[in-house]
Amino acid sequence: MLALSKATEIIDAALAKARAENFDPLAVAVLDAGGHLVAFKREDGAGIIRFDIAFGKAWGSLGMGFGSRELTERADKNATFIGVLATVSGGRMVPSPGGVLILDDNKQVIGAVGISGDIGGNDEVCAVAGIEAAGFAAVTRTVR
Amino acid sequence: MLALSKATEIIDAALAKARAENFDPLAVAVLDAGGHLVAFKREDGAGIIRFDIAFGKAWGSLGMGFGSRELTERADKNATFIGVLATVSGGRMVPSPGGVLILDDNKQVIGAVGISGDIGGNDEVCAVAGIEAAGFAAVTRTVR
Amino acid sequence: MLALSKATEIIDAALAKARAENFDPLAVAVLDAGGHLVAFKREDGAGIIRFDIAFGKAWGSLGMGFGSRELTERADKNATFIGVLATVSGGRMVPSPGGVLILDDNKQVIGAVGISGDIGGNDEVCAVAGIEAAGFAAVTRTVR
Amino acid sequence: MLALSKATEIIDAALAKARAENFDPLAVAVLDAGGHLVAFKREDGAGIIRFDIAFGKAWGSLGMGFGSRELTERADKNATFIGVLATVSGGRMVPSPGGVLILDDNKQVIGAVGISGDIGGNDEVCAVAGIEAAGFAAVTRTVR
Repeated sequence: MLALSKATEIIDAALAKARAENFDPLAVAVLDAGGHLVAFKREDGAGIIRFDIAFGKAWGSLGMGFGSRELTERADKNATFIGVLATVSGGRMVPSPGGVLILDDNKQVIGAVGISGDIGGNDEVCAVAGIEAAGFAAVTRTVR
Repeated sequence: MLALSKATEIIDAALAKARAENFDPLAVAVLDAGGHLVAFKREDGAGIIRFDIAFGKAWGSLGMGFGSRELTERADKNATFIGVLATVSGGRMVPSPGGVLILDDNKQVIGAVGISGDIGGNDEVCAVAGIEAAGFAAVTRTVR
Repeated sequence: MLALSKATEIIDAALAKARAENFDPLAVAVLDAGGHLVAFKREDGAGIIRFDIAFGKAWGSLGMGFGSRELTERADKNATFIGVLATVSGGRMVPSPGGVLILDDNKQVIGAVGISGDIGGNDEVCAVAGIEAAGFAAVTRTVR
Repeated sequence: MLALSKATEIIDAALAKARAENFDPLAVAVLDAGGHLVAFKREDGAGIIRFDIAFGKAWGSLGMGFGSRELTERADKNATFIGVLATVSGGRMVPSPGGVLILDDNKQVIGAVGISGDIGGNDEVCAVAGIEAAGFAAVTRTVR
């Protein structure tokens, strides 16, 4: 179970990191293990598609069982397949870094964070910072 | 403009009201005037469709320009039309109380709150409490 | 967590009940708490929409947090709202008995069963039989 | 006709192969000739998009009349067309190995198996093993 209190901690720490680094305005989504939204914040100035991208990075990570950086790298090798996955998932799988799995102490996936607003690498930095600040392990590629 | 800081205030005050009243676990969505999600929280124990219902109450309020209580009452008189609106909007218009417009000091609609989790009347009580705690006016029916 | 081994037990016991009662051919879906399919069987002779109905009874139960018998009774009182929920959920909420929540020993919802093929009441009898045979508690209405 | 008893045999043999080979957790879908789900199992640990991918490999095989390995190879030559097919089919055609046609003794297509969870080649090995264990012929490319 990913409690709302923990999801809120993750988002607030991710956004604190973004402000400390002076990144562009971000949208941050936290999903439970079933791919359902637990909490979300969109900073002033972030564009109107940012929720969907952030959500899709997180959902896609849960869908495949690895962080969206891994999905991004696979898209370089097999663009058609990853493009089809976007359709299969109804637009919920976005191949760009910034989707990061949340692991508890037992190494179980309890959810995922998705961030969009700056370049993917910066989005990911904030996702990892948020997850670790809440006491969990962050997985940007594969679990093993 | 509805700032993230204000959207967060609205959600936290709405949830404080829900806990004070011992309502069922709620999902609370705050949308800007363009119908885009600014912030969201789903309390532990709320079901997996609650985000979509909360979003749809708020989006439907913005869509028609009146609170979802008004939409609910119109649904009693014209069920087919409201049912078709659900389809027209891609499932983003939900005829149940708990979608409430947010008005600023100039009586401009700057966004909407949608809440789902308890019965519609209780959802609406929390939406109004949140909006007013943030210093805005809440509209559950028509603006004028 | 709802293990595949348990989901299989539920389905096989539900179908054994259906054959013992000589019910019409059934489709039986078992979903985890996040609304994702774990296991499914459709008996020979069951129609081609039966998967979708069975899935929708189970998903709708998880979506709202109560069994589909409760959803059915609410549909009698508020047909428009329940009709809209079908749209909101993308056709995943079906108001007919036969969607039953699965509770573990800690009274946590760990998934749901949905059955379609005979009349709703008979579908539900088999869902309850399956859940109880696997050592879980079955909830056809509200949890509390 | 593809009987449920045979679909169950196929799934269980495919999963036995996966465990013998120590592959990643799999989702296995068996569809009849009309593209409708007969039976499905998702192993513990398989991600939440795996049902849709497995289904799409099988449905896409039936849709075109050849196994998804053939579809994959055509995707290499004509990415745009295969991408559009994904849209045309509503996300039910997935160009990756692991969708395999089931032929009876009369060389009639009576259904298809779709598997997702490991790399496509391994998914396909399990699909073929399952189909052959049930006494049918498996077609990974074209029938003739």
